[in-house]
Amino acid sequence: MSKAFQVVGIGNAMVDVLAHATDDFLAANGIEKGVMQLTDRARGVELYSKVGPAQEISGGSAANTIAGIAHLGGRTAYVGKVKDDQLGAIFAHDLRAQGAVYKTAMAPADHPAETGRCIVLVTPDGERSMNTYLGVTEFLEPSDIDESQMADAEWIYLEGYRFDGPDSMAAFQKAIAACRGAGGRVSLTLSDPFCIERHRDAFRTMLRDHVDLLFANRAEVLSMYQTDDFEAALGQAAGEVAIVACTESEHGAHVLSDGQRWHVPAVPTDIVDATGAGDLFASGFLWGLTEGHTLQDCAAMGCIAASEVISHIGARPQADLKALFAEHGLIRQRSA
Amino acid sequence: MSKAFQVVGIGNAMVDVLAHATDDFLAANGIEKGVMQLTDRARGVELYSKVGPAQEISGGSAANTIAGIAHLGGRTAYVGKVKDDQLGAIFAHDLRAQGAVYKTAMAPADHPAETGRCIVLVTPDGERSMNTYLGVTEFLEPSDIDESQMADAEWIYLEGYRFDGPDSMAAFQKAIAACRGAGGRVSLTLSDPFCIERHRDAFRTMLRDHVDLLFANRAEVLSMYQTDDFEAALGQAAGEVAIVACTESEHGAHVLSDGQRWHVPAVPTDIVDATGAGDLFASGFLWGLTEGHTLQDCAAMGCIAASEVISHIGARPQADLKALFAEHGLIRQRSA
Repeated sequence: MSKAFQVVGIGNAMVDVLAHATDDFLAANGIEKGVMQLTDRARGVELYSKVGPAQEISGGSAANTIAGIAHLGGRTAYVGKVKDDQLGAIFAHDLRAQGAVYKTAMAPADHPAETGRCIVLVTPDGERSMNTYLGVTEFLEPSDIDESQMADAEWIYLEGYRFDGPDSMAAFQKAIAACRGAGGRVSLTLSDPFCIERHRDAFRTMLRDHVDLLFANRAEVLSMYQTDDFEAALGQAAGEVAIVACTESEHGAHVLSDGQRWHVPAVPTDIVDATGAGDLFASGFLWGLTEGHTLQDCAAMGCIAASEVISHIGARPQADLKALFAEHGLIRQRSA
Repeated sequence: MSKAFQVVGIGNAMVDVLAHATDDFLAANGIEKGVMQLTDRARGVELYSKVGPAQEISGGSAANTIAGIAHLGGRTAYVGKVKDDQLGAIFAHDLRAQGAVYKTAMAPADHPAETGRCIVLVTPDGERSMNTYLGVTEFLEPSDIDESQMADAEWIYLEGYRFDGPDSMAAFQKAIAACRGAGGRVSLTLSDPFCIERHRDAFRTMLRDHVDLLFANRAEVLSMYQTDDFEAALGQAAGEVAIVACTESEHGAHVLSDGQRWHVPAVPTDIVDATGAGDLFASGFLWGLTEGHTLQDCAAMGCIAASEVISHIGARPQADLKALFAEHGLIRQRSA
């Protein structure tokens, strides 16, 4: 294969507004801990007025994954909508500066919504509670999908969060058809349990019909198959999808494929901000896969990338992930 | 005294765009290391297109100082101009969320310039090279000064950088007159050696006529008095200003007042990002002063605050400075 892109990701383009908060603050403001909740603009503004000093840093689940792949030197592109405003310019800059291709047309300056932002409240335990004002990123639609780009992708990577929009679902279908039609494969992340609650049937249909690689964490796969039995849920997923990569926080990651199963331990670290753990697991896994590594090594790379990103504020890598892979003996040390 | 404000600061309102860079990058792009250089918008855009992924965080020298005083629980306010745009809203939020009063009218959305931003390039040694597009913050003028607020300040704190604008100098004069007329005192930071080169006479006149407390670092005080002899420069400054507080990086800080002199050692730390060291020294010093501490203890508080801020990315405090002051025996441990 010599396609232009190893991975093309599609998802919600967001700028993260990172602030520290106490558990009491979450409770007082009716914020569910550890998950993503959607807000309208008014609620976003209200919440922002209550949080302390923040820092702004590009985010978005699939965008974090693609930034991680670009950081590793992978050939990668991203599709997701921002507006022609200051935060939109920051989002586009950060992705391109990392080496990803990003060509999605910006919503014009007179669009009534703004670039999406996510108020990420980090509690002292490093857990993050996300409050997402989608803004213009809701308006991703089939015309934003360049079929030739999708046809030129070894893998596409779809963000479950974008199941929230019917036009975006149509955009996903267009991307899937173009990618698979050219021999490419489809990966999907379930994004979060509440997202699954909202769209279980659509996820289920897509898993069976179109998905070659599923990313999920324990809570998501349990929610997907409406069970408390983790083993049963993994088994069901593996019956529907060729490769299942399921993370389990400090217990590492499980990979199931073709009747085989591997477990890879987590890489211990001090958790500063858990934002992006799943996103960067997918970066490491997909990069490894498209570089020809074994599924077990792909999962190990995912765990290393996840460990790096939770050791600091922000959901994109700061340390040299390839050097970390080399330290763990997964790739050869690069020559100077 | 029971004035509403312990300190009111006036300066350039900026959002920092923090990115990592190598010394080679600085050289290739003609960037002077370790100082602030002004850029026009085009140069700012060009430079931004070349730097890697960044994070955005509120900055501005005097604004950092005021944020630090607010963090310490001081009664404080800030004056500096942003635009009614996304970065302007972020700047205002962060200052108010820290507890400072900030009422300066925003430049309207149709103003041709944008909220000022500073591309801060952090090299592996933690040193920072600042590239400042002033934007609307240049347009600070006398009408932005609320004389009653200045009259209600024990101290005002003026940022040398703002000497670059004649209207802003007039604003400073108005603030000084209102403050001193009501028995308040005036502090000034020299900001940086190049700033002094541009405005040495204006600084000199202001020092002699109006300044009660001067903040400077070694390079600045040498530039101010056009000498290589640090002792001579300190002596000259002390002859012109009632209190001189001069920092000397890892060698700590010197305070000269009323024929006396103190030296306080720096607080060792791993330098991650030197941005804000001088700004937070001023926070600790001014807070201590207005809380009735000795000059020596004020300098010690300044050194602790500076040490905290250079141990992480961003120029505003993240750890509890009061707890650090208590650990060093400078204040009593707060009861829970």
